[in-house]
Amino acid sequence: MSKYLDRYEDFNEIRNMKINELEEFAEEIRQFLISQVSKTGGHLSSNLGVVELTMSLFNVFDFNKDKIIWDVGHQSYVHKILTGRKEKFDTLRQYKGLSGFPKTEESKYDMFNTGHSSTSISAAAGMARARDIKNEKHDVVAVIGDGALTGGMAMEALNDIGYNKTKMIVVLNDNQMSISPNVGGISTYLNDLRMGNAYNRVKSDVNATLEKIPRVGKSMINSINKMKDSVKQLMVPGMLFENMGLKYYGPIDGHDIKEMSKVLKKAQQVEGPVIIHVITKKGKGYEYAEEFPDKFHGVGPFNCENGQQPSKASKSYSEIFGETMVKLAEKNRKLVAITAAMPEGTGLEGFSKEFPKRFFDVGIAEQHAVTMAAGMASQGLKPVFAVYSTFLQRAYDQVIHDVAIQKLPVVIAIDRAGIVGQDGETHQGVFDLSYLTHIPDMTIMSPKCTEELRYMLQFAVTQNYPIAIRYPRGGDLSNIKLSPMTFFRKGKWEVLGNKSGKVAIIAVGKMVQNVIIAKEMLKEKNIDCTIVNSCFVKPIDSELIKELVQSGYDLVTVEDNMISGGLGSEILEYLNREGLLKNNILTLGFKDKFIQHGDVNILYNLNKLDPEGICSSVEEFLTKE
Amino acid sequence: MSKYLDRYEDFNEIRNMKINELEEFAEEIRQFLISQVSKTGGHLSSNLGVVELTMSLFNVFDFNKDKIIWDVGHQSYVHKILTGRKEKFDTLRQYKGLSGFPKTEESKYDMFNTGHSSTSISAAAGMARARDIKNEKHDVVAVIGDGALTGGMAMEALNDIGYNKTKMIVVLNDNQMSISPNVGGISTYLNDLRMGNAYNRVKSDVNATLEKIPRVGKSMINSINKMKDSVKQLMVPGMLFENMGLKYYGPIDGHDIKEMSKVLKKAQQVEGPVIIHVITKKGKGYEYAEEFPDKFHGVGPFNCENGQQPSKASKSYSEIFGETMVKLAEKNRKLVAITAAMPEGTGLEGFSKEFPKRFFDVGIAEQHAVTMAAGMASQGLKPVFAVYSTFLQRAYDQVIHDVAIQKLPVVIAIDRAGIVGQDGETHQGVFDLSYLTHIPDMTIMSPKCTEELRYMLQFAVTQNYPIAIRYPRGGDLSNIKLSPMTFFRKGKWEVLGNKSGKVAIIAVGKMVQNVIIAKEMLKEKNIDCTIVNSCFVKPIDSELIKELVQSGYDLVTVEDNMISGGLGSEILEYLNREGLLKNNILTLGFKDKFIQHGDVNILYNLNKLDPEGICSSVEEFLTKE
Repeated sequence: MSKYLDRYEDFNEIRNMKINELEEFAEEIRQFLISQVSKTGGHLSSNLGVVELTMSLFNVFDFNKDKIIWDVGHQSYVHKILTGRKEKFDTLRQYKGLSGFPKTEESKYDMFNTGHSSTSISAAAGMARARDIKNEKHDVVAVIGDGALTGGMAMEALNDIGYNKTKMIVVLNDNQMSISPNVGGISTYLNDLRMGNAYNRVKSDVNATLEKIPRVGKSMINSINKMKDSVKQLMVPGMLFENMGLKYYGPIDGHDIKEMSKVLKKAQQVEGPVIIHVITKKGKGYEYAEEFPDKFHGVGPFNCENGQQPSKASKSYSEIFGETMVKLAEKNRKLVAITAAMPEGTGLEGFSKEFPKRFFDVGIAEQHAVTMAAGMASQGLKPVFAVYSTFLQRAYDQVIHDVAIQKLPVVIAIDRAGIVGQDGETHQGVFDLSYLTHIPDMTIMSPKCTEELRYMLQFAVTQNYPIAIRYPRGGDLSNIKLSPMTFFRKGKWEVLGNKSGKVAIIAVGKMVQNVIIAKEMLKEKNIDCTIVNSCFVKPIDSELIKELVQSGYDLVTVEDNMISGGLGSEILEYLNREGLLKNNILTLGFKDKFIQHGDVNILYNLNKLDPEGICSSVEEFLTKE
Repeated sequence: MSKYLDRYEDFNEIRNMKINELEEFAEEIRQFLISQVSKTGGHLSSNLGVVELTMSLFNVFDFNKDKIIWDVGHQSYVHKILTGRKEKFDTLRQYKGLSGFPKTEESKYDMFNTGHSSTSISAAAGMARARDIKNEKHDVVAVIGDGALTGGMAMEALNDIGYNKTKMIVVLNDNQMSISPNVGGISTYLNDLRMGNAYNRVKSDVNATLEKIPRVGKSMINSINKMKDSVKQLMVPGMLFENMGLKYYGPIDGHDIKEMSKVLKKAQQVEGPVIIHVITKKGKGYEYAEEFPDKFHGVGPFNCENGQQPSKASKSYSEIFGETMVKLAEKNRKLVAITAAMPEGTGLEGFSKEFPKRFFDVGIAEQHAVTMAAGMASQGLKPVFAVYSTFLQRAYDQVIHDVAIQKLPVVIAIDRAGIVGQDGETHQGVFDLSYLTHIPDMTIMSPKCTEELRYMLQFAVTQNYPIAIRYPRGGDLSNIKLSPMTFFRKGKWEVLGNKSGKVAIIAVGKMVQNVIIAKEMLKEKNIDCTIVNSCFVKPIDSELIKELVQSGYDLVTVEDNMISGGLGSEILEYLNREGLLKNNILTLGFKDKFIQHGDVNILYNLNKLDPEGICSSVEEFLTKE
């Protein structure tokens, strides 16, 4: 029985607890987190890093009136525990269970949904200004990591609140990591602040100057020290933020509740915007996570005792992508790889070691990444930007404006397309086909299996126009053996096996695998079908479509993307335009709503995109005809 | 006959010219600009501001090998004159004429297309890295305004190049303006640098400290002054940029060719990234433009002698929007207005004066604007973000992630939707319906005339969900009188007049006006039609569509947006899904390519969306049936 955690009822208690009690409570929470996340999986390192910070925030603020926004939000577990959701941790990130991110639907203490990086200062600025317009009195706090500060919109927000002197508190949770170690000039700067380098550099310069002054008597030592302190105060701590108009406090030990509480109280009194620079350790208190914070960033269930994580069954698309990039780079000296703070997630870690000069981690900066890639392509390089589908949304404008209009041969490797599962609606990669197909001069491909990705990437880097390749999280279904396409012609699809039956099912990427299983199920119902791998989502294979329709085939499309604006929609437009619409076609995909968190298989099942769902939809469609 | 301009052949000459010759040449160019732009219209103020800067760049660099990127690009006229395009200025911004922006298709000296703000540092970083990978030697220069620096991606890029010490030169063209005066903490900071405030503040603090030191003899004065210089060097100039890892030079008079050339040469020698802070005056040398730089930002033809611009015929959508906002704000104290550096362009200038506390200009920061609006809406305010269609592309992710997922009642007023004309492919507002309709929980409206916008906005601010209202540049066709809808029900369309004929033409926004004229033309060919105003683009009026189809109507859709993913596509999907597709429907809109610059009417004509084009397409469609 724990001393605090089990008896704890309400966060008002925290404001009345003594520091040593808070410290003990924090330790209980830490053990609870390790034990729970080892069972359910989830974001461990980031939450272990903010236990004391969260306690300090609850110690100082009253979140019945004060507002808090957790940037990205995967570090909100302690906040969830403290606001009455401890009992729900068994259902963490499961379908209908506790979300791994702040969700306003889940609790009134989750005040703003987060998921993508760098939004918190903007949202908090909106809240603070709403408070002022409504003549209310309360604090607004944004907690943002140093990684998230590399995202441009965070700087846009700092620039705005600094200028307008908006009263609010930004807690900069500096753990020197995004998911991977941080990059960027600001990161170096923060490191200088942490290490006292900036101060030391100034001090030694000032000392050197003083040494050149003749006749400095011993009696002046004290005075000079005073002056040095003055100089230090003038310039050293957080000038970058002070220059932008924010008051800076820090750096502060983010595991020292007493010190943090003190500074937070001081910040409450400031009339304008404040930034509090807090140093935390990702994975704090769990040795395996401290040593490998990235491995325990988002984890599945693991062995709590020894930190062992079960090994994965098959190679993921990301791994195949990474391997192929290395092989291609050996032959093609113009090939370069770009990531926005995701070297491991995208499979580029190996590349980064083999070809450090041709590898660019730009920080959480998708906009910059795309336009920089365009700049490289304009000079004859072959840049490949690997990015998750949901994060590429950030660079939609740059894809149009800097890549497509100039027809520059940038390859965008879109990972985590389709349903990603536990991270929920902010992270599902279900819009990419919709936001890319309407862009002129874009080519979009998708491999039906991991092996096909190899050949597709090989093809893409030899082409002289913009290409996006989208592929899902994870790997192949283990029970299916597929022959990859090894040769591609722009806009030409693959018919799997011989044409047969009266219905042709045209599927995108990994949906081909589900359709192959569905075909077997349909056979049992005496329905034969032809399977088409639409390896190009744009341009579509209009010749093949025409041939199929004119041969009397009914068409079904299957894509793990919104139906609106996706492949089915493109085919429908084509048939309509060409006067080929004889029958209705069946377009399967995601309907017009956001997709919650939960197990990938459950979500595909609920959206009827698993083999069973596809089978029954096709059967129903054919019956109606 | 001018001394230099008419004889000038090649920019190599500039590198050999003396400073006084360059100054004379600059003055000739300035007069040429004023005279030309007064005839054709174009961007005047920004180009007058960079005459000497451009001369200095051409004086120091060799753009046969060195690279230059002009951020936004509307200040590239002098560059165009110096690279052999002077004779084409009579065709400026006209269809098939000289582009108002750098265009790689137009000249090899336009090295990267620009148009939207804040892309230049990213593109230049890509070029510089390509140079290093290819082991080449040349300089890469990005010229970026202080306004563009408020855009997040510019900060993303600075952060990256500062960290990685990428050798390149950023020229910060500081004119204290975007199109309107600049806002933001960085802007204040730059102002401090300009005014020497930062240095003065430090100096007085250091003096105060020194005064407290006892027994400072006169003999020490020199030494102390030396120390003050040292302190000054340590901290004052451009610490913000130095902190990010860039070497800072400045501030420098941007109309002093000699000084600028000197500093640019110094910057060439630096091994890492350099930022050169140049102070220029927008509109320099033309008194009317100096006084009202915003009025001469993008102008039509004007009277060169007195600066008079012809007054517009009818009220624009933007003006009606602005007027309505003021009226609504008088009654609704929770209504707030947001702009991303476009108070005039969006019509919000009046609002900003009437309700300064409820008006937020966040700088060129569309991402921050949308999420801040979401933050406000979460606290019960009613934020209206007015933004051009093409710039909202920058905030596509934030619309999904911060507004739609949380179903927050943000109103997005999308101005300049459809073809904007002279600014060309980077600025056409032809994607918004495609990038918004596939977002769950979004509602999209569009008024058929300026008066309807009033009632639509009035409706939108009373609703409790996200709404986008899109409307075009300019105003109504003067020869049409329309009755605005004054009452709206979500997803319900308006049938204009009585239903008649066998074809129903469903049109979006101002396309309704073109269809009304087309109807008259069709009448002459004995074709009668019913006109439907699809005031909601999402959700569509499925009941009405069903009724029309079941009554035997053929359907035609007309929208000034890409066909892919637009209204026609939505209707097609609906009919297909419901088994209602009896005949093909005709979907008119923009085909799958980017739309060049030119007169709006010419472009609508070429895309067959003018009354004649609509008429002939409908006639052809009906003949085929």
